[in-house]
Amino acid sequence: MARSHRHTIRVRYGESDQMGFAHHGAYVTWLEEARIEWLRAAGTSYRELEASGVLMPVIECQVRYRKPLRFDDVVELETGIVESGPSRVTFATAIRSGGELRAEGRVTVAAVTREGRPTRLPAGLVELLG
Amino acid sequence: MARSHRHTIRVRYGESDQMGFAHHGAYVTWLEEARIEWLRAAGTSYRELEASGVLMPVIECQVRYRKPLRFDDVVELETGIVESGPSRVTFATAIRSGGELRAEGRVTVAAVTREGRPTRLPAGLVELLG
Amino acid sequence: MARSHRHTIRVRYGESDQMGFAHHGAYVTWLEEARIEWLRAAGTSYRELEASGVLMPVIECQVRYRKPLRFDDVVELETGIVESGPSRVTFATAIRSGGELRAEGRVTVAAVTREGRPTRLPAGLVELLG
Amino acid sequence: MARSHRHTIRVRYGESDQMGFAHHGAYVTWLEEARIEWLRAAGTSYRELEASGVLMPVIECQVRYRKPLRFDDVVELETGIVESGPSRVTFATAIRSGGELRAEGRVTVAAVTREGRPTRLPAGLVELLG
Repeated sequence: MARSHRHTIRVRYGESDQMGFAHHGAYVTWLEEARIEWLRAAGTSYRELEASGVLMPVIECQVRYRKPLRFDDVVELETGIVESGPSRVTFATAIRSGGELRAEGRVTVAAVTREGRPTRLPAGLVELLG
Repeated sequence: MARSHRHTIRVRYGESDQMGFAHHGAYVTWLEEARIEWLRAAGTSYRELEASGVLMPVIECQVRYRKPLRFDDVVELETGIVESGPSRVTFATAIRSGGELRAEGRVTVAAVTREGRPTRLPAGLVELLG
Repeated sequence: MARSHRHTIRVRYGESDQMGFAHHGAYVTWLEEARIEWLRAAGTSYRELEASGVLMPVIECQVRYRKPLRFDDVVELETGIVESGPSRVTFATAIRSGGELRAEGRVTVAAVTREGRPTRLPAGLVELLG
Repeated sequence: MARSHRHTIRVRYGESDQMGFAHHGAYVTWLEEARIEWLRAAGTSYRELEASGVLMPVIECQVRYRKPLRFDDVVELETGIVESGPSRVTFATAIRSGGELRAEGRVTVAAVTREGRPTRLPAGLVELLG
Protein backbone atom coordinates (compact mmCIF):
# COMPACT_ATOMS: atom_id res chain seq x y z
CA MET A 1 0.00 0.00 0.00
CA ALA A 2 1.76 3.13 -1.20
CA ARG A 3 1.09 6.43 0.59
CA SER A 4 -0.25 4.70 3.64
CA HIS A 5 -1.28 6.79 6.62
CA ARG A 6 -1.53 5.72 10.26
CA HIS A 7 -4.29 7.02 12.48
CA THR A 8 -4.84 6.10 16.11
CA ILE A 9 -8.11 5.87 18.00
CA ARG A 10 -9.12 4.53 21.41
CA VAL A 11 -12.21 2.28 21.72
CA ARG A 12 -15.06 4.27 23.32
CA TYR A 13 -17.11 2.77 26.15
CA GLY A 14 -20.32 3.14 24.16
CA GLU A 15 -18.68 1.15 21.35
CA SER A 16 -18.47 -1.94 23.56
CA ASP A 17 -21.32 -4.43 23.56
CA GLN A 18 -22.57 -7.04 26.03
CA MET A 19 -20.04 -9.60 24.75
CA GLY A 20 -17.46 -7.27 26.27
CA PHE A 21 -15.94 -6.50 22.85
CA ALA A 22 -15.97 -3.52 20.54
CA HIS A 23 -19.19 -3.90 18.50
CA HIS A 24 -18.54 -4.80 14.85
CA GLY A 25 -20.45 -1.72 13.69
CA ALA A 26 -17.96 0.61 15.39
CA TYR A 27 -15.18 -0.48 13.02
CA VAL A 28 -17.09 1.00 10.07
CA THR A 29 -17.00 4.41 11.78
CA TRP A 30 -13.27 4.06 12.50
CA LEU A 31 -12.59 3.20 8.85
CA GLU A 32 -14.39 6.39 7.85
CA GLU A 33 -12.34 8.45 10.30
CA ALA A 34 -9.17 6.79 8.94
CA ARG A 35 -10.10 7.66 5.30
CA ILE A 36 -10.73 11.27 6.22
CA GLU A 37 -7.36 11.45 7.98
CA TRP A 38 -5.70 9.79 4.96
CA LEU A 39 -7.13 12.58 2.80
CA ARG A 40 -5.99 15.24 5.29
CA ALA A 41 -2.46 13.79 5.37
CA ALA A 42 -2.52 13.90 1.56
CA GLY A 43 -3.40 17.59 1.65
CA THR A 44 -7.11 17.24 0.91
CA SER A 45 -9.91 18.19 3.28
CA TYR A 46 -13.00 16.03 2.79
CA ARG A 47 -15.03 18.86 4.34
CA GLU A 48 -13.83 21.24 1.59
CA LEU A 49 -14.37 18.55 -1.06
CA GLU A 50 -18.04 18.37 -0.05
CA ALA A 51 -18.28 22.17 0.14
CA SER A 52 -16.97 22.30 -3.44
CA GLY A 53 -19.82 20.01 -4.54
CA VAL A 54 -18.14 16.60 -4.72
CA LEU A 55 -19.58 13.96 -2.37
CA MET A 56 -17.91 10.60 -1.90
CA PRO A 57 -20.51 8.14 -0.60
CA VAL A 58 -19.52 4.59 0.27
CA ILE A 59 -20.67 2.10 -2.38
CA GLU A 60 -19.09 -1.01 -0.85
CA CYS A 61 -17.76 -1.82 2.57
CA GLN A 62 -16.19 -5.04 3.85
CA VAL A 63 -14.65 -5.87 7.20
CA ARG A 64 -12.93 -9.10 8.31
CA TYR A 65 -12.72 -9.45 12.07
CA ARG A 66 -9.66 -11.45 13.23
CA LYS A 67 -9.42 -10.94 16.97
CA PRO A 68 -11.66 -8.85 19.21
CA LEU A 69 -10.90 -5.39 20.55
CA ARG A 70 -12.10 -4.08 23.91
CA PHE A 71 -13.10 -0.79 25.46
CA ASP A 72 -10.09 1.47 26.09
CA ASP A 73 -7.83 -0.42 23.66
CA VAL A 74 -5.57 1.85 21.64
CA VAL A 75 -6.02 0.96 17.98
CA GLU A 76 -3.87 1.85 14.99
CA LEU A 77 -5.46 2.07 11.56
CA GLU A 78 -3.07 1.94 8.62
CA THR A 79 -4.85 3.04 5.46
CA GLY A 80 -3.79 3.04 1.82
CA ILE A 81 -5.33 3.03 -1.66
CA VAL A 82 -5.58 -0.35 -3.38
CA GLU A 83 -7.57 0.55 -6.50
CA SER A 84 -8.76 3.66 -8.26
CA GLY A 85 -10.65 4.64 -11.37
CA PRO A 86 -11.85 7.95 -12.84
CA SER A 87 -14.69 8.23 -10.34
CA ARG A 88 -13.99 5.77 -7.55
CA VAL A 89 -11.31 4.82 -5.03
CA THR A 90 -10.87 1.73 -2.85
CA PHE A 91 -9.19 2.16 0.52
CA ALA A 92 -7.77 -0.78 2.50
CA THR A 93 -7.13 -0.48 6.22
CA ALA A 94 -5.23 -2.77 8.58
CA ILE A 95 -6.57 -2.47 12.12
CA ARG A 96 -3.95 -3.33 14.75
CA SER A 97 -3.63 -3.23 18.50
CA GLY A 98 -0.90 -4.48 20.80
CA GLY A 99 1.21 -5.31 17.76
CA GLU A 100 -1.39 -7.71 16.34
CA LEU A 101 -3.69 -7.54 13.33
CA ARG A 102 -7.24 -7.40 14.68
CA ALA A 103 -9.29 -6.67 11.55
CA GLU A 104 -9.05 -5.65 7.92
CA GLY A 105 -11.33 -3.20 6.15
CA ARG A 106 -11.86 -2.43 2.49
CA VAL A 107 -14.11 0.44 1.46
CA THR A 108 -14.95 1.80 -1.99
CA VAL A 109 -16.24 5.34 -2.38
CA ALA A 110 -17.59 6.94 -5.58
CA ALA A 111 -17.55 10.61 -6.51
CA VAL A 112 -21.03 12.05 -7.12
CA THR A 113 -22.46 15.55 -7.45
CA ARG A 114 -24.82 16.95 -4.82
CA GLU A 115 -27.66 15.82 -7.13
CA GLY A 116 -26.34 12.25 -7.02
CA ARG A 117 -24.87 12.09 -10.54
CA PRO A 118 -21.53 10.30 -10.97
CA THR A 119 -18.66 12.72 -11.46
CA ARG A 120 -14.87 12.53 -11.82
CA LEU A 121 -12.62 12.50 -8.78
CA PRO A 122 -11.18 15.94 -8.02
CA ALA A 123 -7.97 16.59 -10.04
CA GLY A 124 -5.85 17.03 -6.91
CA LEU A 125 -6.86 13.61 -5.67
CA VAL A 126 -6.27 11.93 -9.05
CA GLU A 127 -2.76 13.40 -9.11
CA LEU A 128 -2.11 11.99 -5.66
CA LEU A 129 -3.26 8.56 -6.78
CA GLY A 130 -0.60 8.71 -9.49
CA MET B 1 -49.59 14.88 29.60
CA ALA B 2 -52.40 15.63 27.15
CA ARG B 3 -52.24 14.11 23.66
CA SER B 4 -49.75 11.50 24.72
CA HIS B 5 -48.60 8.94 22.20
CA ARG B 6 -47.15 5.48 22.83
CA HIS B 7 -44.37 4.12 20.68
CA THR B 8 -42.68 0.76 21.12
CA ILE B 9 -39.08 -0.18 20.34
CA ARG B 10 -36.91 -3.19 21.08
CA VAL B 11 -33.36 -2.69 22.42
CA ARG B 12 -30.84 -3.43 19.63
CA TYR B 13 -27.81 -5.62 20.30
CA GLY B 14 -25.44 -2.83 19.30
CA GLU B 15 -27.15 -0.60 21.89
CA SER B 16 -25.94 -2.84 24.72
CA ASP B 17 -22.61 -2.09 26.39
CA GLN B 18 -20.12 -4.18 28.36
CA MET B 19 -22.09 -3.67 31.59
CA GLY B 20 -24.74 -5.80 29.88
CA PHE B 21 -27.24 -2.91 29.82
CA ALA B 22 -28.61 -0.62 27.14
CA HIS B 23 -26.05 2.20 26.85
CA HIS B 24 -27.34 5.52 28.22
CA GLY B 25 -26.69 7.21 24.87
CA ALA B 26 -29.20 4.93 23.10
CA TYR B 27 -32.10 6.44 25.07
CA VAL B 28 -31.49 9.82 23.41
CA THR B 29 -32.05 8.20 20.01
CA TRP B 30 -35.22 6.49 21.22
CA LEU B 31 -36.56 9.81 22.55
CA GLU B 32 -36.01 11.31 19.10
CA GLU B 33 -37.84 8.43 17.43
CA ALA B 34 -40.69 8.86 19.96
CA ARG B 35 -41.00 12.63 19.21
CA ILE B 36 -41.14 11.96 15.49
CA GLU B 37 -43.86 9.34 16.02
CA TRP B 38 -45.74 11.78 18.32
CA LEU B 39 -45.72 14.29 15.46
CA ARG B 40 -46.86 11.63 12.96
CA ALA B 41 -49.72 10.57 15.26
CA ALA B 42 -50.67 14.26 15.48
CA GLY B 43 -50.83 14.47 11.68
CA THR B 44 -47.47 16.17 11.14
CA SER B 45 -44.52 14.67 9.30
CA TYR B 46 -41.20 15.94 10.64
CA ARG B 47 -39.70 15.05 7.26
CA GLU B 48 -42.16 17.41 5.51
CA LEU B 49 -41.61 20.05 8.18
CA GLU B 50 -37.89 20.09 7.33
CA ALA B 51 -38.65 20.02 3.60
CA SER B 52 -40.81 23.13 4.12
CA GLY B 53 -37.83 24.90 5.68
CA VAL B 54 -38.51 24.56 9.42
CA LEU B 55 -35.86 22.66 11.38
CA MET B 56 -36.38 21.71 15.02
CA PRO B 57 -32.96 21.12 16.61
CA VAL B 58 -32.71 19.96 20.20
CA ILE B 59 -31.65 22.78 22.54
CA GLU B 60 -31.88 20.85 25.78
CA CYS B 61 -32.02 17.18 26.63
CA GLN B 62 -32.28 15.48 30.01
CA VAL B 63 -32.62 11.81 30.90
CA ARG B 64 -33.06 10.24 34.35
CA TYR B 65 -32.19 6.55 34.42
CA ARG B 66 -34.18 4.59 37.03
CA LYS B 67 -33.59 0.93 36.28
CA PRO B 68 -31.50 -0.59 33.49
CA LEU B 69 -32.80 -2.05 30.24
CA ARG B 70 -31.18 -4.92 28.39
CA PHE B 71 -30.74 -6.10 24.81
CA ASP B 72 -33.99 -7.49 23.37
CA ASP B 73 -36.21 -5.80 25.98
CA VAL B 74 -39.42 -4.42 24.54
CA VAL B 75 -39.70 -0.79 25.61
CA GLU B 76 -42.71 1.52 25.56
CA LEU B 77 -42.17 5.24 25.24
CA GLU B 78 -45.11 7.43 26.22
CA THR B 79 -44.56 10.95 24.99
CA GLY B 80 -46.48 14.18 25.57
CA ILE B 81 -45.94 17.95 25.50
CA VAL B 82 -45.24 19.62 28.83
CA GLU B 83 -44.45 23.17 27.73
CA SER B 84 -44.64 25.23 24.59
CA GLY B 85 -43.95 28.76 23.43
CA PRO B 86 -44.11 30.55 20.07
CA SER B 87 -40.91 28.92 18.84
CA ARG B 88 -40.17 25.99 21.15
CA VAL B 89 -41.75 22.83 22.55
CA THR B 90 -40.76 20.57 25.44
CA PHE B 91 -41.56 16.88 25.16
CA ALA B 92 -41.59 14.55 28.18
CA THR B 93 -41.31 10.81 27.73
CA ALA B 94 -41.84 7.99 30.21
CA ILE B 95 -39.76 4.94 29.27
CA ARG B 96 -41.30 1.69 30.54
CA SER B 97 -40.65 -2.00 30.21
CA GLY B 98 -42.26 -4.99 31.91
CA GLY B 99 -44.77 -2.64 33.51
CA GLU B 100 -42.06 -0.60 35.28
CA LEU B 101 -40.76 2.92 34.78
CA ARG B 102 -37.16 2.58 33.62
CA ALA B 103 -36.26 6.16 32.68
CA GLU B 104 -37.69 9.61 32.06
CA GLY B 105 -36.69 11.97 29.28
CA ARG B 106 -37.35 15.65 28.73
CA VAL B 107 -36.30 17.29 25.48
CA THR B 108 -36.78 20.87 24.24
CA VAL B 109 -36.63 21.64 20.54
CA ALA B 110 -36.63 25.10 18.95
CA ALA B 111 -37.91 26.05 15.48
CA VAL B 112 -35.22 27.59 13.26
CA THR B 113 -34.91 28.33 9.55
CA ARG B 114 -32.43 26.49 7.36
CA GLU B 115 -30.09 29.48 7.94
CA GLY B 116 -30.33 28.96 11.71
CA ARG B 117 -32.55 31.94 12.54
CA PRO B 118 -35.29 31.39 15.16
CA THR B 119 -38.73 31.14 13.60
CA ARG B 120 -42.27 30.45 14.79
CA LEU B 121 -43.57 26.91 15.13
CA PRO B 122 -45.64 25.84 12.11
CA ALA B 123 -49.32 26.95 12.47
CA GLY B 124 -50.60 23.37 12.34
CA LEU B 125 -48.41 22.39 15.26
CA VAL B 126 -49.38 25.46 17.32
CA GLU B 127 -53.03 24.60 16.81
CA LEU B 128 -52.37 21.07 18.03
CA LEU B 129 -50.67 22.40 21.14
CA GLY B 130 -53.85 24.38 21.90
CA MET C 1 -32.79 -18.06 -0.02
CA ALA C 2 -34.79 -20.72 1.79
CA ARG C 3 -36.46 -19.81 5.11
CA SER C 4 -36.21 -16.12 4.40
CA HIS C 5 -37.68 -13.70 6.90
CA ARG C 6 -38.83 -10.12 6.30
CA HIS C 7 -38.27 -7.44 8.90
CA THR C 8 -39.22 -3.79 8.57
CA ILE C 9 -37.49 -0.76 10.06
CA ARG C 10 -37.81 2.98 9.58
CA VAL C 11 -34.66 5.11 9.11
CA ARG C 12 -34.01 7.10 12.31
CA TYR C 13 -33.18 10.82 12.17
CA GLY C 14 -29.87 10.23 13.92
CA GLU C 15 -28.99 7.69 11.23
CA SER C 16 -28.99 10.39 8.55
CA ASP C 17 -25.76 12.23 7.75
CA GLN C 18 -24.96 15.60 6.22
CA MET C 19 -25.27 14.19 2.68
CA GLY C 20 -28.96 13.85 3.57
CA PHE C 21 -28.78 10.04 3.31
CA ALA C 22 -28.84 7.20 5.80
CA HIS C 23 -25.20 6.81 6.91
CA HIS C 24 -23.59 3.62 5.59
CA GLY C 25 -22.76 2.51 9.12
CA ALA C 26 -26.46 2.34 10.08
CA TYR C 27 -27.05 -0.54 7.64
CA VAL C 28 -24.73 -2.76 9.69
CA THR C 29 -26.98 -2.25 12.71
CA TRP C 30 -30.10 -3.02 10.66
CA LEU C 31 -28.51 -6.23 9.37
CA GLU C 32 -27.90 -7.28 12.98
CA GLU C 33 -31.51 -6.54 13.93
CA ALA C 34 -32.65 -8.52 10.87
CA ARG C 35 -30.51 -11.56 11.86
CA ILE C 36 -31.91 -11.51 15.37
CA GLU C 37 -35.46 -11.36 14.00
CA TRP C 38 -34.63 -14.19 11.57
CA LEU C 39 -33.59 -16.31 14.58
CA ARG C 40 -36.73 -15.33 16.49
CA ALA C 41 -38.95 -16.25 13.53
CA ALA C 42 -37.10 -19.60 13.44
CA GLY C 43 -37.93 -20.19 17.09
CA THR C 44 -34.53 -19.25 18.54
CA SER C 45 -33.89 -16.33 20.85
CA TYR C 46 -30.40 -14.91 20.42
CA ARG C 47 -30.69 -13.55 23.95
CA GLU C 48 -31.24 -17.09 25.31
CA LEU C 49 -28.47 -18.43 23.07
CA GLU C 50 -26.02 -16.05 24.76
CA ALA C 51 -27.45 -16.83 28.20
CA SER C 52 -26.78 -20.53 27.47
CA GLY C 53 -23.11 -19.70 26.79
CA VAL C 54 -22.97 -19.58 22.98
CA LEU C 55 -21.94 -16.23 21.51
CA MET C 56 -22.13 -15.56 17.79
CA PRO C 57 -19.75 -12.70 16.98
CA VAL C 58 -19.52 -11.35 13.43
CA ILE C 59 -16.35 -12.49 11.66
CA GLU C 60 -17.08 -10.94 8.28
CA CYS C 61 -19.44 -8.25 7.11
CA GLN C 62 -20.00 -6.87 3.62
CA VAL C 63 -22.49 -4.32 2.34
CA ARG C 64 -23.07 -3.15 -1.24
CA TYR C 65 -24.92 0.15 -1.43
CA ARG C 66 -27.06 0.50 -4.59
CA LYS C 67 -29.27 3.53 -4.07
CA PRO C 68 -29.44 5.80 -1.02
CA LEU C 69 -32.06 5.70 1.71
CA ARG C 70 -33.26 8.75 3.61
CA PHE C 71 -34.54 9.59 7.07
CA ASP C 72 -38.10 8.31 7.63
CA ASP C 73 -37.94 5.80 4.74
CA VAL C 74 -39.63 2.52 5.53
CA VAL C 75 -37.14 -0.26 4.74
CA GLU C 76 -37.74 -3.98 4.31
CA LEU C 77 -34.93 -6.39 5.09
CA GLU C 78 -35.32 -9.88 3.64
CA THR C 79 -32.84 -12.23 5.28
CA GLY C 80 -31.89 -15.84 4.58
CA ILE C 81 -29.02 -18.25 5.11
CA VAL C 82 -26.65 -18.72 2.18
CA GLU C 83 -23.96 -20.91 3.76
CA SER C 84 -23.42 -22.83 6.95
CA GLY C 85 -20.83 -25.09 8.54
CA PRO C 86 -20.50 -26.80 11.93
CA SER C 87 -19.61 -23.55 13.69
CA ARG C 88 -20.54 -20.70 11.36
CA VAL C 89 -23.44 -19.30 9.38
CA THR C 90 -23.61 -16.72 6.59
CA PHE C 91 -26.72 -14.58 6.33
CA ALA C 92 -27.61 -12.60 3.19
CA THR C 93 -30.03 -9.70 3.35
CA ALA C 94 -31.72 -7.76 0.57
CA ILE C 95 -32.51 -4.20 1.69
CA ARG C 96 -35.49 -2.72 -0.18
CA SER C 97 -37.59 0.41 -0.03
CA GLY C 98 -40.35 1.68 -2.32
CA GLY C 99 -40.17 -1.60 -4.23
CA GLU C 100 -36.50 -1.13 -5.14
CA LEU C 101 -33.33 -2.89 -4.07
CA ARG C 102 -31.27 -0.33 -2.15
CA ALA C 103 -28.45 -2.43 -0.71
CA GLU C 104 -27.29 -6.00 -0.14
CA GLY C 105 -25.62 -7.31 3.01
CA ARG C 106 -23.76 -10.52 3.73
CA VAL C 107 -22.65 -11.31 7.26
CA THR C 108 -20.87 -14.37 8.67
CA VAL C 109 -21.09 -15.19 12.36
CA ALA C 110 -19.13 -17.88 14.23
CA ALA C 111 -20.18 -19.74 17.37
CA VAL C 112 -17.75 -19.28 20.27
CA THR C 113 -17.88 -19.95 24.00
CA ARG C 114 -17.84 -17.10 26.51
CA GLU C 115 -14.06 -17.68 26.76
CA GLY C 116 -13.73 -17.12 23.02
CA ARG C 117 -13.11 -20.73 21.96
CA PRO C 118 -14.80 -21.95 18.74
CA THR C 119 -17.77 -24.19 19.46
CA ARG C 120 -20.47 -25.96 17.45
CA LEU C 121 -23.68 -24.19 16.51
CA PRO C 122 -26.55 -25.09 18.86
CA ALA C 123 -28.31 -28.28 17.76
CA GLY C 124 -31.64 -26.53 17.29
CA LEU C 125 -30.12 -24.10 14.87
CA VAL C 126 -28.26 -26.81 12.92
CA GLU C 127 -31.55 -28.67 12.50
CA LEU C 128 -33.18 -25.53 11.16
CA LEU C 129 -30.38 -25.09 8.64
CA GLY C 130 -31.14 -28.56 7.35
CA MET D 1 -14.41 23.48 38.70
CA ALA D 2 -11.34 22.24 40.54
CA ARG D 3 -9.17 19.55 38.92
CA SER D 4 -10.56 20.19 35.50
CA HIS D 5 -9.21 18.24 32.56
CA ARG D 6 -9.27 19.17 28.87
CA HIS D 7 -9.85 16.55 26.22
CA THR D 8 -10.03 17.19 22.48
CA ILE D 9 -12.08 15.33 19.89
CA ARG D 10 -12.92 15.93 16.24
CA VAL D 11 -16.54 15.56 15.04
CA ARG D 12 -16.85 12.33 13.00
CA TYR D 13 -18.67 12.30 9.66
CA GLY D 14 -21.14 9.71 10.92
CA GLU D 15 -21.96 12.02 13.83
CA SER D 16 -23.38 14.65 11.46
CA ASP D 17 -27.07 14.57 10.58
CA GLN D 18 -29.13 15.88 7.68
CA MET D 19 -29.36 19.35 9.26
CA GLY D 20 -25.62 19.50 8.58
CA PHE D 21 -24.81 19.64 12.31
CA ALA D 22 -23.36 17.20 14.82
CA HIS D 23 -26.34 15.14 16.03
CA HIS D 24 -27.31 15.93 19.63
CA GLY D 25 -26.87 12.27 20.60
CA ALA D 26 -23.15 12.37 19.72
CA TYR D 27 -22.45 14.83 22.55
CA VAL D 28 -23.47 12.19 25.11
CA THR D 29 -20.74 9.90 23.76
CA TRP D 30 -18.17 12.71 23.89
CA LEU D 31 -19.09 13.47 27.51
CA GLU D 32 -18.46 9.82 28.36
CA GLU D 33 -15.06 9.90 26.64
CA ALA D 34 -14.25 13.12 28.53
CA ARG D 35 -15.16 11.55 31.93
CA ILE D 36 -12.98 8.54 31.20
CA GLU D 37 -10.08 10.83 30.27
CA TRP D 38 -10.69 12.90 33.43
CA LEU D 39 -10.32 9.68 35.46
CA ARG D 40 -7.17 8.71 33.55
CA ALA D 41 -5.63 12.16 34.13
CA ALA D 42 -6.47 11.69 37.82
CA GLY D 43 -4.59 8.39 37.86
CA THR D 44 -7.62 6.09 37.70
CA SER D 45 -8.42 3.75 34.85
CA TYR D 46 -12.16 3.23 34.43
CA ARG D 47 -11.34 -0.07 32.74
CA GLU D 48 -9.53 -1.27 35.87
CA LEU D 49 -12.32 0.10 38.08
CA GLU D 50 -14.80 -2.15 36.26
CA ALA D 51 -12.36 -5.08 36.35
CA SER D 52 -12.17 -4.62 40.15
CA GLY D 53 -15.97 -4.94 40.35
CA VAL D 54 -17.11 -1.32 40.59
CA LEU D 55 -19.37 -0.14 37.76
CA MET D 56 -20.34 3.50 37.38
CA PRO D 57 -23.53 3.69 35.32
CA VAL D 58 -25.02 7.05 34.39
CA ILE D 59 -28.10 7.89 36.46
CA GLU D 60 -28.72 11.36 35.08
CA CYS D 61 -27.56 13.17 31.97
CA GLN D 62 -28.31 16.69 30.82
CA VAL D 63 -27.01 18.64 27.84
CA ARG D 64 -27.71 22.27 26.87
CA TYR D 65 -26.93 23.00 23.23
CA ARG D 66 -25.86 26.62 22.63
CA LYS D 67 -24.50 26.76 19.10
CA PRO D 68 -24.17 23.91 16.61
CA LEU D 69 -21.00 21.99 15.79
CA ARG D 70 -20.22 20.53 12.38
CA PHE D 71 -18.37 17.56 10.93
CA ASP D 72 -14.58 17.97 11.21
CA ASP D 73 -14.79 20.67 13.91
CA VAL D 74 -12.14 20.32 16.58
CA VAL D 75 -13.89 20.35 19.95
CA GLU D 76 -12.44 20.88 23.41
CA LEU D 77 -14.20 19.34 26.39
CA GLU D 78 -13.27 20.78 29.77
CA THR D 79 -14.51 18.50 32.53
CA GLY D 80 -14.59 18.86 36.31
CA ILE D 81 -16.48 17.54 39.33
CA VAL D 82 -19.30 19.70 40.63
CA GLU D 83 -20.81 17.44 43.29
CA SER D 84 -19.96 14.19 45.01
CA GLY D 85 -21.34 11.92 47.69
CA PRO D 86 -20.29 8.52 49.13
CA SER D 87 -21.56 6.65 46.09
CA ARG D 88 -22.07 9.19 43.31
CA VAL D 89 -20.25 11.91 41.39
CA THR D 90 -21.53 14.68 39.11
CA PHE D 91 -19.28 15.78 36.27
CA ALA D 92 -19.80 19.08 34.42
CA THR D 93 -18.31 19.62 30.97
CA ALA D 94 -17.96 22.79 28.92
CA ILE D 95 -17.91 21.98 25.20
CA ARG D 96 -16.04 24.60 23.17
CA SER D 97 -14.90 25.08 19.61
CA GLY D 98 -13.27 28.05 17.88
CA GLY D 99 -13.03 29.79 21.25
CA GLU D 100 -16.81 29.69 21.81
CA LEU D 101 -18.99 27.75 24.23
CA ARG D 102 -21.10 25.39 22.13
CA ALA D 103 -22.78 23.22 24.76
CA GLU D 104 -22.74 22.29 28.44
CA GLY D 105 -23.12 18.81 29.84
CA ARG D 106 -23.81 17.55 33.35
CA VAL D 107 -23.71 13.85 34.09
CA THR D 108 -24.16 11.96 37.37
CA VAL D 109 -22.79 8.45 37.78
CA ALA D 110 -23.40 6.09 40.70
CA ALA D 111 -21.11 3.33 41.95
CA VAL D 112 -22.73 -0.13 41.87
CA THR D 113 -21.48 -3.68 42.17
CA ARG D 114 -21.63 -6.07 39.22
CA GLU D 115 -24.92 -7.35 40.74
CA GLY D 116 -26.35 -3.83 40.61
CA ARG D 117 -26.20 -3.03 44.34
CA PRO D 118 -25.14 0.49 45.35
CA THR D 119 -21.59 0.59 46.68
CA ARG D 120 -19.12 3.24 47.85
CA LEU D 121 -16.86 5.04 45.42
CA PRO D 122 -13.35 3.52 45.33
CA ALA D 123 -11.13 5.02 48.08
CA GLY D 124 -8.63 6.39 45.56
CA LEU D 125 -11.35 8.35 43.81
CA VAL D 126 -12.82 9.70 47.08
CA GLU D 127 -9.37 10.95 48.06
CA LEU D 128 -9.08 12.72 44.73
CA LEU D 129 -12.45 14.41 45.25
CA GLY D 130 -11.11 15.82 48.50
